[in-house]
Amino acid sequence: MRAVAVVSAGMTAFGELWQSSLRDLFGDAAAAALRGVDAMRVDSIYVGNMAGGQFVGQEHLGPLLADQLGLRGVPATRVESACASGGAALRCGFLEVASGASDMVLVAGVEKMTDGADVTAVLATAADQEQEVYQGVTFPGLYAMIARAHMHTRGTTEEDLHWVSVKNHRHGALNPKAQFRREVSLHDVASSSLVAAPLRLLHCSPVSDGAAAVLLVPLERAREFTDKPVRIRGSGMASSSLTLAERADPAVLDAVRASGERAYRMAGITPRDVQLAEVHDCFSIAEICVLEALDLTAGVSAAEAARTGYSALGGERPINTSGGLKSKGHPVGATGVAQVIEIFEQLRGEAGARQVQGASLGVTQNMGGSGASSVVHVLERV
Amino acid sequence: MRAVAVVSAGMTAFGELWQSSLRDLFGDAAAAALRGVDAMRVDSIYVGNMAGGQFVGQEHLGPLLADQLGLRGVPATRVESACASGGAALRCGFLEVASGASDMVLVAGVEKMTDGADVTAVLATAADQEQEVYQGVTFPGLYAMIARAHMHTRGTTEEDLHWVSVKNHRHGALNPKAQFRREVSLHDVASSSLVAAPLRLLHCSPVSDGAAAVLLVPLERAREFTDKPVRIRGSGMASSSLTLAERADPAVLDAVRASGERAYRMAGITPRDVQLAEVHDCFSIAEICVLEALDLTAGVSAAEAARTGYSALGGERPINTSGGLKSKGHPVGATGVAQVIEIFEQLRGEAGARQVQGASLGVTQNMGGSGASSVVHVLERV
Repeated sequence: MRAVAVVSAGMTAFGELWQSSLRDLFGDAAAAALRGVDAMRVDSIYVGNMAGGQFVGQEHLGPLLADQLGLRGVPATRVESACASGGAALRCGFLEVASGASDMVLVAGVEKMTDGADVTAVLATAADQEQEVYQGVTFPGLYAMIARAHMHTRGTTEEDLHWVSVKNHRHGALNPKAQFRREVSLHDVASSSLVAAPLRLLHCSPVSDGAAAVLLVPLERAREFTDKPVRIRGSGMASSSLTLAERADPAVLDAVRASGERAYRMAGITPRDVQLAEVHDCFSIAEICVLEALDLTAGVSAAEAARTGYSALGGERPINTSGGLKSKGHPVGATGVAQVIEIFEQLRGEAGARQVQGASLGVTQNMGGSGASSVVHVLERV
Repeated sequence: MRAVAVVSAGMTAFGELWQSSLRDLFGDAAAAALRGVDAMRVDSIYVGNMAGGQFVGQEHLGPLLADQLGLRGVPATRVESACASGGAALRCGFLEVASGASDMVLVAGVEKMTDGADVTAVLATAADQEQEVYQGVTFPGLYAMIARAHMHTRGTTEEDLHWVSVKNHRHGALNPKAQFRREVSLHDVASSSLVAAPLRLLHCSPVSDGAAAVLLVPLERAREFTDKPVRIRGSGMASSSLTLAERADPAVLDAVRASGERAYRMAGITPRDVQLAEVHDCFSIAEICVLEALDLTAGVSAAEAARTGYSALGGERPINTSGGLKSKGHPVGATGVAQVIEIFEQLRGEAGARQVQGASLGVTQNMGGSGASSVVHVLERV
């Protein structure tokens, strides 16, 4: 396999972007990623998108978006793995460059969620329709069950959940692209309305519009494009049962664990080597479960990592310096690519007020459903 | 890039399969493809599916279907490019094996279309919502315009269209998996009801349920699985404008042409080397346009290829020996994979009454929308 590098990136701000259509969002992010590049050299495009058909009545996004960029003719494929669609698209692009079939692949993620669809119902099509949704459960309920299980078996408290949100909003307040650029207090979180007990509004990521894009090339050619390429050193993906009830322990995200192990193995690293990570905090409990599954809190309790500052900017291993899904926003198809952009900027020393000093190796983890799919990438400054 | 081979295949019959759910269909096809194989060796799964979210309320098919096979944990990604979803999924699987990242990839396509959704409206989400569907046009109308343009510039007649249907039903009558296993006469086609002039009911592929699956491995290991591997010698994909009106000539399928040229180039062949092909006859006019775009009727008119027997079983270059989408059926996400299965069986000498004697090299062409995406594969007996 050829070594693969990310050489540029672009993203829209995330938020309720009522003035922008899906194709506008994609075009803005992709054009930013292609700035200064001869776009005619793009060999292939992958678009991560969960539910364009349901959200805005538009499937077949590959050719639509290639054309939007003026790249009519270029192969363009949409990839879907629910909220892990962006990570899955990145993996396809990585494999295409690694194979030698293509020398320049644009990977984008996009979602337009605020155009009037019943968002909770659309998102629920990522859960098992026959075994879960038909019974009336949607994702806040599923993650509430995960939280209850975690509290029951590990003694995790509601305050542990609050701290994840407080930390991520603190990070997001420093991110000009974040949907919520403001801090929230422990009291704000604790007194926000209950959505599905024990999860409160400020434990939940928002409904968002947005797009993100990165450009991949063989590492050996990366310096034609930038002085600061970032290598994709490892890529791992895994699945689990779509139905939460079929897992041995609802609070153990086995697909996250397997995808992390595969990515670490391909990269030839251990969790100890990871300096920072963007993980899938669709609900605050998810960040805690993911840190455990990726073994990223050696020596401390994952539930206490936010409270103690371990996972905060300035701490031993900053997690979700972008603000995470909670504060940055969660346009579902875009999230996996936006995570990569945060690590890309951190490793290049371009993260501004959020900069983790000396960062040279980071990880992204993107998840679909209640953890039924997970994609992990290991990124390294070269 | 490593050479890649198809070593086994499985598919359901196509039809209105009201007793089977989407996961049943997938499970049946995939289990048939995995018969005699240690399924625990599957490294990755790709699922081509156009609109599970809209047809049956289920996105996130990757993990759902991996679990259905007892392969919980295996990476599983859904790929969508409208009616070219199956071909696009095959391309992703091909690239993953070619890259060296995986040694066994299951590629499946599935669609469940008869569960009550408004099929024409769902399919229309593969056209441009803003520029086409909002104006009231759906695919029969778009292909009718393609037919009119073809008649206008090339003198193609309605009878030319009829002959494509007559030929494909003659082939499909020999295919135990076909939805319509019966011949139709020229008079049947000419007197069938008008759908969108000049297209009649018997120029249109049907609404179908079905699934198809193939197993890919590196060519160098193929003989561990079969004495008759089939190599994927070329893979090409291309896009065009989603909107038909933006193309220079509506009857010229430029994405088909580009995808064919790319696949021929990778395979190191010319159209003259192609002995048989499965092409995307969603409407009869499409077969004629595709044969032109792929340059598969050297010396004869593509419009007359069916009438003269050139493209019939026993002719110089049999096209759609499976019965094509018209007679075999068109469960949209499954079609691209089912095309590969027909060529796979032909090259192995296992096509029964449809066998093309001495077939050693064939092509598949799978298309999305009114030709906005196209995927071509070149398959060879080794």
